[in-house]
Amino acid sequence: MDFELNEDQQAFANMATAFARTELEPHAAEWDQQHFFPVEVIRKAGEMGFAALYAPEASGGLGLSRLDASIIFERLSMGCTSTTAYLTIHNMVTWMVTSFAQPSVLQAYGEALVSAQKLGSYCLTEPNAGSDAASLKTTAKQDGDHYLLNGSKVFISGAGSTDVLVVMARTGGPGARGISAIVVDAHSEGISYGRAEDKMGWNSQPTRMVSFDNVKVPLSNLLSTEGEGFVLAMKGLDGGRINIASCSIGTAQQALNQARNYMQERQQFGKKIGDFQGLQFRLADMATELLAARQLVRLAASKLDRQDPDATTYCAMAKRFATDVGFRVCDDALQIFGGYGYIKEYPLERYVRDTRVHRILEGTNEIMRVIIGRRLLADTDTEF
Amino acid sequence: MDFELNEDQQAFANMATAFARTELEPHAAEWDQQHFFPVEVIRKAGEMGFAALYAPEASGGLGLSRLDASIIFERLSMGCTSTTAYLTIHNMVTWMVTSFAQPSVLQAYGEALVSAQKLGSYCLTEPNAGSDAASLKTTAKQDGDHYLLNGSKVFISGAGSTDVLVVMARTGGPGARGISAIVVDAHSEGISYGRAEDKMGWNSQPTRMVSFDNVKVPLSNLLSTEGEGFVLAMKGLDGGRINIASCSIGTAQQALNQARNYMQERQQFGKKIGDFQGLQFRLADMATELLAARQLVRLAASKLDRQDPDATTYCAMAKRFATDVGFRVCDDALQIFGGYGYIKEYPLERYVRDTRVHRILEGTNEIMRVIIGRRLLADTDTEF
Amino acid sequence: MDFELNEDQQAFANMATAFARTELEPHAAEWDQQHFFPVEVIRKAGEMGFAALYAPEASGGLGLSRLDASIIFERLSMGCTSTTAYLTIHNMVTWMVTSFAQPSVLQAYGEALVSAQKLGSYCLTEPNAGSDAASLKTTAKQDGDHYLLNGSKVFISGAGSTDVLVVMARTGGPGARGISAIVVDAHSEGISYGRAEDKMGWNSQPTRMVSFDNVKVPLSNLLSTEGEGFVLAMKGLDGGRINIASCSIGTAQQALNQARNYMQERQQFGKKIGDFQGLQFRLADMATELLAARQLVRLAASKLDRQDPDATTYCAMAKRFATDVGFRVCDDALQIFGGYGYIKEYPLERYVRDTRVHRILEGTNEIMRVIIGRRLLADTDTEF
Amino acid sequence: MDFELNEDQQAFANMATAFARTELEPHAAEWDQQHFFPVEVIRKAGEMGFAALYAPEASGGLGLSRLDASIIFERLSMGCTSTTAYLTIHNMVTWMVTSFAQPSVLQAYGEALVSAQKLGSYCLTEPNAGSDAASLKTTAKQDGDHYLLNGSKVFISGAGSTDVLVVMARTGGPGARGISAIVVDAHSEGISYGRAEDKMGWNSQPTRMVSFDNVKVPLSNLLSTEGEGFVLAMKGLDGGRINIASCSIGTAQQALNQARNYMQERQQFGKKIGDFQGLQFRLADMATELLAARQLVRLAASKLDRQDPDATTYCAMAKRFATDVGFRVCDDALQIFGGYGYIKEYPLERYVRDTRVHRILEGTNEIMRVIIGRRLLADTDTEF
Repeated sequence: MDFELNEDQQAFANMATAFARTELEPHAAEWDQQHFFPVEVIRKAGEMGFAALYAPEASGGLGLSRLDASIIFERLSMGCTSTTAYLTIHNMVTWMVTSFAQPSVLQAYGEALVSAQKLGSYCLTEPNAGSDAASLKTTAKQDGDHYLLNGSKVFISGAGSTDVLVVMARTGGPGARGISAIVVDAHSEGISYGRAEDKMGWNSQPTRMVSFDNVKVPLSNLLSTEGEGFVLAMKGLDGGRINIASCSIGTAQQALNQARNYMQERQQFGKKIGDFQGLQFRLADMATELLAARQLVRLAASKLDRQDPDATTYCAMAKRFATDVGFRVCDDALQIFGGYGYIKEYPLERYVRDTRVHRILEGTNEIMRVIIGRRLLADTDTEF
Repeated sequence: MDFELNEDQQAFANMATAFARTELEPHAAEWDQQHFFPVEVIRKAGEMGFAALYAPEASGGLGLSRLDASIIFERLSMGCTSTTAYLTIHNMVTWMVTSFAQPSVLQAYGEALVSAQKLGSYCLTEPNAGSDAASLKTTAKQDGDHYLLNGSKVFISGAGSTDVLVVMARTGGPGARGISAIVVDAHSEGISYGRAEDKMGWNSQPTRMVSFDNVKVPLSNLLSTEGEGFVLAMKGLDGGRINIASCSIGTAQQALNQARNYMQERQQFGKKIGDFQGLQFRLADMATELLAARQLVRLAASKLDRQDPDATTYCAMAKRFATDVGFRVCDDALQIFGGYGYIKEYPLERYVRDTRVHRILEGTNEIMRVIIGRRLLADTDTEF
Repeated sequence: MDFELNEDQQAFANMATAFARTELEPHAAEWDQQHFFPVEVIRKAGEMGFAALYAPEASGGLGLSRLDASIIFERLSMGCTSTTAYLTIHNMVTWMVTSFAQPSVLQAYGEALVSAQKLGSYCLTEPNAGSDAASLKTTAKQDGDHYLLNGSKVFISGAGSTDVLVVMARTGGPGARGISAIVVDAHSEGISYGRAEDKMGWNSQPTRMVSFDNVKVPLSNLLSTEGEGFVLAMKGLDGGRINIASCSIGTAQQALNQARNYMQERQQFGKKIGDFQGLQFRLADMATELLAARQLVRLAASKLDRQDPDATTYCAMAKRFATDVGFRVCDDALQIFGGYGYIKEYPLERYVRDTRVHRILEGTNEIMRVIIGRRLLADTDTEF
Repeated sequence: MDFELNEDQQAFANMATAFARTELEPHAAEWDQQHFFPVEVIRKAGEMGFAALYAPEASGGLGLSRLDASIIFERLSMGCTSTTAYLTIHNMVTWMVTSFAQPSVLQAYGEALVSAQKLGSYCLTEPNAGSDAASLKTTAKQDGDHYLLNGSKVFISGAGSTDVLVVMARTGGPGARGISAIVVDAHSEGISYGRAEDKMGWNSQPTRMVSFDNVKVPLSNLLSTEGEGFVLAMKGLDGGRINIASCSIGTAQQALNQARNYMQERQQFGKKIGDFQGLQFRLADMATELLAARQLVRLAASKLDRQDPDATTYCAMAKRFATDVGFRVCDDALQIFGGYGYIKEYPLERYVRDTRVHRILEGTNEIMRVIIGRRLLADTDTEF
């Protein structure tokens, strides 16, 4: 066993930290306030390879492991949670297209997604199929050499400002096996975008409903084969859960660092608040739980990289634990800042707002418990 | 013992519920979004007596107990947490002025505060004296028949939009005994107001820094006697803690009700999410802890009404527990709503943002623990 | 509302405290170690009325309310959790017999149960019907003027050392409506007792399996009417839950007091451990949560006394919360004692062992959540 | 990074599992009940190398890493927590003697400790120096070619049944620098042993007070050099914390496995209790937190192996988290067993009793928080 970053990982981590400090952190508060989607900065991230971390090298991606990507996303999220979270979604799209698209589509979008010249959105969730993805209703009916897409998707990150959609749609019968993944040009005729949702956080990325009204898409835009969409989506979710968990870890580390620094400066009752044991104990617990969460995320990423048959369970555990711990650490850090934690002049309240959604998306933490519990009870032999 | 509302309490509760439903709830989201201070609605509340709940009847107040007031604030906060929270502060100001002011000041402000024609702000906290109120630095130096006020106060609710300030200032030497409470016309020369703080929540009330630069205040504006300011402030805090705890309870009840209703409607995996035992257990715990918290708040209010020598400890316990539980219940309710809990179309995320500050103000929950722990260890005879 | 003990309650509480200090506390450790059932002391308790607290005065009981009884059990449990817990069961038996028995049975057992000259056991749980009482399999078949009892009961407190059994048995068809409550002489032919279970705690009361092999019981030993057994059992459980919750509260208060005292004495690093803020915060939280739990128990007892239609839900909430909090407070108190908390020379570890079972019996805390959750979701109008 | 056991680790783990299943698990309940110290079985463990896991190979030890040892102790503790915990202490003694003893002592005791033919006890804690080891009062005064030992030690595992004591005693002035580590023959004249402490758990190992009354010990029995005792003790503690944390993890895994199996068998309300989502969620959380704790323990062990300058902090984090989580998992597993969890026919209640002390010894979890908090606040650069 080896728990240390290797040289490459350390180098990537340092790059990501530098990018977070110079390109993200100075603007994060403003992006949040103005609900500004920083496309230019995302493109800069693309130039560094951050838009295609685990896309195949053959397509221009960095070909990194999920574990490597987790380390990088963790560091980037220390600069801006919301922007990094969008970037993880873009990475998922890039990976899907570069890994499963047919040559024409790969040619059309691959390079642009890898470099983040074009941005992607991932369209899975529907109004009545939040956690229950297999019941989705958007249809893609074959019509000559095209699919005709009809239906609508909600809570789509980036929607309205992106160029490429990966859409999960029903090409066959009911249930999971009738679903296919299709690449759709975001500017196609028949696509309409709802108004930008006003959210608690994640304000540097727009979230919109996307509606498809007889949208024509070439059959060749199918990813993998028909009926493989749900499998692909689930595969994507495993990675997505690692990614979002990593963003929780990084944000919480940032919050922890700031709380620690504040405790070394802020005076009350004639001494530094860091001298009060009640707060020291709190800080100790924050750091301990955060470290445990990070290790669990890295373990799960490694299991995914190894294609462990139980990778999904490990990813669910990591997502559940890291997003809960991450939020709690941010919330505790806000508390340590007292009144200053509650105002927007300081970033603490933003960390809380931004990490709050991590407990909900990529499968709610309740769905994670369903996945984990079901697996544990499936046999009596496996230990995790 | 008797745990039921009496007829008067039930009548007040019903009035408050009606007011919350018609005057507060329909506008709360908009006030939050637009950072709008609903002065007109607060005046309407004043017409119903809600601006002077426990001010003496002789001065036009309702002369209710703190327990009565707690029940009313709880119901009002179900309509708008932030506006009700401001109203509790106004009530504290009204109570202080009507109870401790000299006749000239009572005449000048009493009736207007009672009816909420004039609004009040309470000025205790300073930049370097958050939890450590006894170290405050604002001075009120006697200068002929006036005090000259100098210094600044932070996180002042209503500041810039209110008419009357109750200011804790140092008229004597260092420490608690040198502090006096003084009524100050909010429009006096020499007072300047900072910009409205941008906060996580509590957006329907402005929060500003207030600076005093040689502000002239008649000596007769002193409340009680010189050196009694800290005692008065602490007394005010006991009630303030009950009030803010009540606002947490009411908001959490509102969140719980909505989560319950949502669980009865929302379908996933072919059934109502209320049929999932994992969520039922969560809902059960939310309701149980909320009820325990409410009982603790009412006990503490009753101890305050009885002038129990340990009322401060009871109030600290109630504030600590109820604001923590209240926040957690709101957070859990948001989670039950999933993605819809995170968007502003639904009120859940607002409940979370608004109740978050209750764990910080009127003394942070860490300071509550200091108060409780110290009292417990002061002797070996008392049981709570 | 009124949260204070009235004079009678205070007097009973004082009596109970005196009894706990002189008759229970000095022997509790020894009873625990030697698994000794202190029948003589229980009879002394009976002389004071503690064996028939809420039995009707007409039958010699004290005719107190459940709330009064809760206060008394709380104080008694401060002396010995396990013995008091048995006493609560005996009280349930006394109440059932004095309230629902036919004259002949009342004459035979009433006075003796009231005075604790005869002791009672309550026989509900079966090996395969723990939480699912309605599925119980013990049968009572009518045979002339007798019932013939067959079946077995597990985890029966006092069994083997008591004189009177109240047995829930099936006189009719399947389900709750086929169950009747029958008084059985514990020394009847055909009853056999298993070996005393070796338990984690609750060692001052024997727990045995009871088997019935064609036990003849006069028809007149039926309590209430046929088919009313389950209703009676559920009614009994509401009170039983208050009682066991009260024992958790009392034990936790005892643990808290001792931890507080220890913190004032024990020196480490050159000062009293009570001077360490980390421990102060812990103590503060213990006291706060315990107080909240006590209030919830008293509220529920009051609802039961008022025959509130939702009394069952309140009792379930009180039982769930108070037994969890009670255990946690005992566990925290043990921790404060460090190594000394772990050895039997001090009572802390016994408090933990004894209160542990309260989270399980009288319906597990999971069953409590089922009851609460189901009620919350039954309509959209009720607030708790 | 690599999170998988290597082949050797897997082989050792399998050996340990086999030993636990055949030699420990079948007897653990009886040893607990009878307070029996299974010396013969410990010697068998010694034959397999389990008494000298990380002692140098030159002295006959296995020369394994702390991480390897952690994996082995985890598996052994699945068979018997208390016996394995003693074994970890013996390993510490073996390691200290084989690593720091002078040749004569090494010759006298080395081989016998390695093979567990002689058993060791570690004598650090004193009645008034629990957490505050640096203040210990036992003295070792030089007297010719001997030390004369005077003082007493408490909570000494194995004492009275072991052969070799490693005693921390004051050879110099006050404070940490005056302490030395000395090997003492357990049968020396002047040593007396108190009665076996009656404990909540850990019953398969005797715990006694040890008193030294002018005990003569050759100067050559000094470990390392004079004044190095505290440093040695602290070093020992880092490893000891990993070890005890590993015992918590292993026991909790055993409890989790049994709860899982029980959920697949036990029927209530006409279905397996494993079909109830409320319990599934609990099981999922148990498994998730346990896995996070295991990862944190392994990380800390690895840091210790790498002689990371912050190893002490990592070990403190691992000990705090793993012993808390381990206890909680055992407690939850007991709850899942309901009434059966509370009786000694099943092992659940023993797991709870045995793991309870892990939160106290090797430095209480409060001391862990002191260590962690202090380190976090020592600078602003380090991240954990």
